[in-house]
Amino acid sequence: MNKHRFNELERAGVYKAIAERRDMRHFLPDPVDAKILHKLLQAAHRAGSVGLMQPWHFIRITEKKLRNDIYQMVEQERRKTAKALAEREDEFMKLKVEGILECAELLVVALPDKREQHIFGRRTLPEMDLASAACAIQNMWLAARAEGLGMGWVSLFEPKVLADLLKMPKGSRPIAILCLGHVDEFYPQPMLEMENWTKARPLDEFVSENEW
Amino acid sequence: MNKHRFNELERAGVYKAIAERRDMRHFLPDPVDAKILHKLLQAAHRAGSVGLMQPWHFIRITEKKLRNDIYQMVEQERRKTAKALAEREDEFMKLKVEGILECAELLVVALPDKREQHIFGRRTLPEMDLASAACAIQNMWLAARAEGLGMGWVSLFEPKVLADLLKMPKGSRPIAILCLGHVDEFYPQPMLEMENWTKARPLDEFVSENEW
Repeated sequence: MNKHRFNELERAGVYKAIAERRDMRHFLPDPVDAKILHKLLQAAHRAGSVGLMQPWHFIRITEKKLRNDIYQMVEQERRKTAKALAEREDEFMKLKVEGILECAELLVVALPDKREQHIFGRRTLPEMDLASAACAIQNMWLAARAEGLGMGWVSLFEPKVLADLLKMPKGSRPIAILCLGHVDEFYPQPMLEMENWTKARPLDEFVSENEW
Repeated sequence: MNKHRFNELERAGVYKAIAERRDMRHFLPDPVDAKILHKLLQAAHRAGSVGLMQPWHFIRITEKKLRNDIYQMVEQERRKTAKALAEREDEFMKLKVEGILECAELLVVALPDKREQHIFGRRTLPEMDLASAACAIQNMWLAARAEGLGMGWVSLFEPKVLADLLKMPKGSRPIAILCLGHVDEFYPQPMLEMENWTKARPLDEFVSENEW
């Protein structure tokens, strides 16, 4: 043991958030406290980032019409994805894949423009900006779970259409539609497992030593 | 307040891990307990993933020669990055950007091959596999902090060279060299700020409403 280790309850909190975080698609209509929303955005913003470039931007959607436009856009992509899945089309169409109209808070996360100026850690891996932004979203997801709030990451959209809808600058790129809000229950396991879409495989299939 | 909210100490643990996690480059030689390493990998593996595809693979490096080869490869990229930074070359060369030879555990994380089979949530945003893998790494980073262990994400490498070195299948792609281990102190703020490389900007510059 070492002096930097958290105490037992704090550690339990971290592991519990990791274990019980779910990609949520079912929400209750109750509003999210503004202070809590700010804490969650702050948690996201505390993520590390490649070369400290902080490659993220959060757009809170409060206009009802805009939320509906986003919903329609996602619905279009949902149908296109279903078609692309061919023999699983019907099965996919039965899944609930987003909670855009029901969730209390809707946020869009985007990579900013002018990312090409950042070379540190990105000369050979330019996609590290997305990796950093995903770390920020994971922070937010875990903090939301600790607050008892559910969050879902929707990636069923045409980035160019969403960028235009939200007047994003050229060079920026939306990466997530986040549905956030109170929930009746957190899924006891990933919803895609509960719905028999697929089965998660155990850790030992993903670890090797010294070579693949 | 709601019934799903964690208790105060558990919540404090989550926020503390988020606030005190650092991208570490300075390590102590003490070994990492095998059980703790397994817990950290399990924490990573508990991340959600687009369509539940679990797009990650962890390679633990235990051969000394291999670790040294990885170090040399990163050292080459460090010099190339420095050149690419032009007028900041000297300043960059003075930064400590990795702890590959000092850390107790060295891991490489890669996206797997055959990712093109996964269409769910990736038809228009194929890069969501990387986003999921980054969420897994963030889980591991936070769990490591809770255990009092430091972790650093090194992205200064040529993915093709590293893939060959570790005999990765065609179509897979390494995204991170993770340095993990005990540390003397966690940096009180991001090291790139302490070294005056750059300054983090506050959250309010990254949030807007209904449009960019």
